[in-house]
Amino acid sequence: MYRAPVSDIAHTLKHTVGFATALEDGRFGEEMSDDLVDAILDEAARFANEEMVPIGWHGDRDGVTLKDGEATTAEGWADLYRRWTEGGWNAITGPEEFGGQGLPLSLGLAVSEMWNSASIGFSLCPTLTMGAVEALEAHGSEELKATYLEKLVSGEWTGTMNLTEPQAGSDLAALKAKAESVGDGTYRIFGQKIYITFGEHDFTDNIVHLVLARLPDAPAGTRGISLFLVPKFIPKEDGTPGARNDVICHSVEHKLGIHGSPTCTMIYGDGKFGDEPGAIGWLIGEENRGLNCMFTMMNNARLLVGLQGVAVAEAAFQKALEYAQERRQGKAAGWKGEGMAPIVYHPDVQRDLLTMKAMTAAARAICYACGFAIDMSHDPHGVSARGAASGAEGQADETGKWSARANLLTPIAKAFSTDIGVDVANTGIQVHGGMGYVEETGAARLLRDARIAPIYEGTNGIQAIDLVMRKLPLADGRAVHDYIADLRRMADEVAQSNAEAFGRTGERLARALEDLTESTEWLQERLQAGEAETALAGATPYLRQFGLTAGGCYLARGAGNGDDEARTALARFFAENLLGETSTLKDRVMAGADSLEAAAERALVVA
Amino acid sequence: MYRAPVSDIAHTLKHTVGFATALEDGRFGEEMSDDLVDAILDEAARFANEEMVPIGWHGDRDGVTLKDGEATTAEGWADLYRRWTEGGWNAITGPEEFGGQGLPLSLGLAVSEMWNSASIGFSLCPTLTMGAVEALEAHGSEELKATYLEKLVSGEWTGTMNLTEPQAGSDLAALKAKAESVGDGTYRIFGQKIYITFGEHDFTDNIVHLVLARLPDAPAGTRGISLFLVPKFIPKEDGTPGARNDVICHSVEHKLGIHGSPTCTMIYGDGKFGDEPGAIGWLIGEENRGLNCMFTMMNNARLLVGLQGVAVAEAAFQKALEYAQERRQGKAAGWKGEGMAPIVYHPDVQRDLLTMKAMTAAARAICYACGFAIDMSHDPHGVSARGAASGAEGQADETGKWSARANLLTPIAKAFSTDIGVDVANTGIQVHGGMGYVEETGAARLLRDARIAPIYEGTNGIQAIDLVMRKLPLADGRAVHDYIADLRRMADEVAQSNAEAFGRTGERLARALEDLTESTEWLQERLQAGEAETALAGATPYLRQFGLTAGGCYLARGAGNGDDEARTALARFFAENLLGETSTLKDRVMAGADSLEAAAERALVVA
Repeated sequence: MYRAPVSDIAHTLKHTVGFATALEDGRFGEEMSDDLVDAILDEAARFANEEMVPIGWHGDRDGVTLKDGEATTAEGWADLYRRWTEGGWNAITGPEEFGGQGLPLSLGLAVSEMWNSASIGFSLCPTLTMGAVEALEAHGSEELKATYLEKLVSGEWTGTMNLTEPQAGSDLAALKAKAESVGDGTYRIFGQKIYITFGEHDFTDNIVHLVLARLPDAPAGTRGISLFLVPKFIPKEDGTPGARNDVICHSVEHKLGIHGSPTCTMIYGDGKFGDEPGAIGWLIGEENRGLNCMFTMMNNARLLVGLQGVAVAEAAFQKALEYAQERRQGKAAGWKGEGMAPIVYHPDVQRDLLTMKAMTAAARAICYACGFAIDMSHDPHGVSARGAASGAEGQADETGKWSARANLLTPIAKAFSTDIGVDVANTGIQVHGGMGYVEETGAARLLRDARIAPIYEGTNGIQAIDLVMRKLPLADGRAVHDYIADLRRMADEVAQSNAEAFGRTGERLARALEDLTESTEWLQERLQAGEAETALAGATPYLRQFGLTAGGCYLARGAGNGDDEARTALARFFAENLLGETSTLKDRVMAGADSLEAAAERALVVA
Repeated sequence: MYRAPVSDIAHTLKHTVGFATALEDGRFGEEMSDDLVDAILDEAARFANEEMVPIGWHGDRDGVTLKDGEATTAEGWADLYRRWTEGGWNAITGPEEFGGQGLPLSLGLAVSEMWNSASIGFSLCPTLTMGAVEALEAHGSEELKATYLEKLVSGEWTGTMNLTEPQAGSDLAALKAKAESVGDGTYRIFGQKIYITFGEHDFTDNIVHLVLARLPDAPAGTRGISLFLVPKFIPKEDGTPGARNDVICHSVEHKLGIHGSPTCTMIYGDGKFGDEPGAIGWLIGEENRGLNCMFTMMNNARLLVGLQGVAVAEAAFQKALEYAQERRQGKAAGWKGEGMAPIVYHPDVQRDLLTMKAMTAAARAICYACGFAIDMSHDPHGVSARGAASGAEGQADETGKWSARANLLTPIAKAFSTDIGVDVANTGIQVHGGMGYVEETGAARLLRDARIAPIYEGTNGIQAIDLVMRKLPLADGRAVHDYIADLRRMADEVAQSNAEAFGRTGERLARALEDLTESTEWLQERLQAGEAETALAGATPYLRQFGLTAGGCYLARGAGNGDDEARTALARFFAENLLGETSTLKDRVMAGADSLEAAAERALVVA
């Protein structure tokens, strides 16, 4: 049974990605202390272990029942949500002005990992709510904030993101939902949205939909999309839910996994509710600038999805290790006890388990590093430097650097970690042998749950394209090299430690960093030469190359000077067994495009 | 919708693995001709496309219902099985003496791929029956053969393999089922068996179980296991099913996939049927030699499971390609038409699709090559050289060489291909985006179905151990180098062709073959030095290294002199984009063991 790995989580946050140093520097204010961090992590672990884990799997068993547009979630989940919000967990990173605790995002991530290990399906609900809080806080009118933010921060109400339509997924330019101005400051929204997570549920008495739609005279494409807030029930003067709005959940998808999370098709404005057709909505931000507003919530949502990969990988590793320690088959040289050896003593099983553990740790470090960069991109007084000018010039430089870092790491955190989630869950099944294929064990459920994460919030292919096309050019191409230089410092420290336990870790890291520099420069040259197609052909292997290299560096950094035996051994295993893939990946990036193009034309018959 | 790829299948069989040359040499007898091969493949394709594909998915939808020990299979399946056996498909590779057509196994494999692409769940039933036929033919008494073989060959009755018990999976030494001699030549069998595929069903009026059990005074371990034939209904004098035997299906597993295939827990001898407790069974082969008899069926079963990997990968590729041609999102440089580009024009999607196609083709070639080696290991008069002495010395050398080849390739065919099956099905989901995660598309089902194949018939870890520990030493270590030499000849032909369309294929193949020779010799040295643990630590990466290298060579050979544009482009894509992984894998094999051992001790806390 999953137990929150508080020690690994705390170590990664504090020492691997640098939270402890920032804390000592007073970067997070006077109230924030190491003791407080530990207290929060411990209490979150208790809640996850005692309250969430025992019924997290109910979602898979019970799914969601939809009747007359109202969804019923799994046994015990509505009550669990109530206890969870009462514990203040929804509010920990929310703005203090609206009742939140204003804790650093990276600490919120560390806590959120535990919820997601217990159940991705359940945790999706607050993940979406947090996105709505961010969008509303950044772009909403004072009136909208006053009406909705406090309730969303506390979790009394939940939020959703309504982007996708049947013809508009990765390409939102094709979006068709309509909005018409009523003239009194409100709008009427019409259209169909699909794949709306927790679009309908029984956790709360209201649901706040954030919906992308087009105004009548809007330009075509993505520059003609506006963002609207559409509550399920329109708040009365006193703030409590009033009239039912004209939006309804038409159906829920039958999915491979995350059965506990209702994935809804939402119909806006079919006239089922209200005096006249059209769901009543309020504009967020400016007209035709909706995509901009939505990106505010999408960036952090992408990081949170990356974290789901880490979370499910951790759960799968723990389950597989537990099974491998109990299950006995055959003989193994290392087993000195009686009878058959626990399979954890077989080298082949050890390879599986260590790969799972090392990859999970690498993905965790990357996600936390991204979260930490977001925290550092806010100036100490709490104003974000992401896109906004800030105070003193030195501070602006500093926050700007961290902002670019966060932007660079977001697609890697999302795609690398969610691929790891699937890989690790898949290997977890294999460690279980036949027991992995029967559903009662729960190993198969983890793969089914993990499989969504590389898809939603922008497929991993989209993330790779984002990394190459939008992130490599950041700061005139310097942002990525600044980051690689930071990674190189970590590798140098290993080399300088002279600790025997690191084996050839330093040498392997140095080689991987050379490879990364080489493929990065090559891609940047392609972009400058206008050869985007050639660069795009290598986007996916490049992203993995980047993730592996960064992950290897973080693991080494987390191992300190080599005196932490377990972490050093794991960093070495990663460097000597897993990191070698980066040279293959570099080769695929830099020498794979020609044969890809030729084969696409001749073997896929694409002209 | 899946359409049997007759052209690829025929080409791989005839030209890639050498069937055409053997046919011309008259190796398969006078009646066998190229026209006959084509006629069989075409008719099988028609049956698969028209009869199986439309209802293959019913198994996933309906599953299996068990009531009072009797199983009901999916809608239409029992009737489909009847039509399929009436078409003679169960009998094509069966012995002619018992009504079979005696066709080469490799041709049977080519046909079987189509059934498995249509539905692995359905095809499992005859796969098990074929194994029973082989074991019975090789080891059964004349009386048993006379009673059962004809019915098993035609498919009038089906067969099962009963090995696994809760405590005895990979390690059959721990097996506990008991057999007691009655004194009249029959035995009474007692015990519980799990994971029994098609242990109960409604396809036929009898089921023939092959069951491993221990006699009272049998030695401990695997040398005390005997094989018994236990029919569900004991045949009457006239051969028709008579009294119900004391064996019953207690339950069917709730599995991740292959829902249409009943995976049964079977109880032998609990006294529910018959005058006294104990299922009546007949000994197959000698007492305490059961494992030997079982291996006869396991070897070919392993190859057939490998083929399932190919089959599901082919189905997943076709589905993904079809979707990528229809689904439109965004802009792509190669798309000259109106509106959004079909996603097949995006380089990133092309990489996914080409990787799927190339890996599927590589796995297919390896499986067919293994089947072809089995065919060639039989002397032209039909006597197997596998384990048996044969006629003239030159012929014996020749068949012995092919027998070793078949033994060498079996674990690679099983493990490499089933890993590919999972990888390709997984990528297939990704190409579908959000549609891949909803079950109605069918992409998710393919992953769920594919996931069993790396587990059953010996997990892929067991296959890797088998390759390193039992197959590398074959013929004093020469068998593997003979094979590598054959692969090198294929690579040399590419280099000599000077065809520009091959790009750097020849060079890449040569490097991969050097790597393979190096890691092979290194592993053989470890074994000779008594360092089995070190060799075992690299077993899994070595098997994949072997599969990739062989696959790359076969694809190049199948492309001829480079004049087959599509196959040449695909072979080049494989060589330039996928084959590079072999150097990483070699490194993992030869330089990964120390860090693995250190990390197992310190990070997994295994003493």
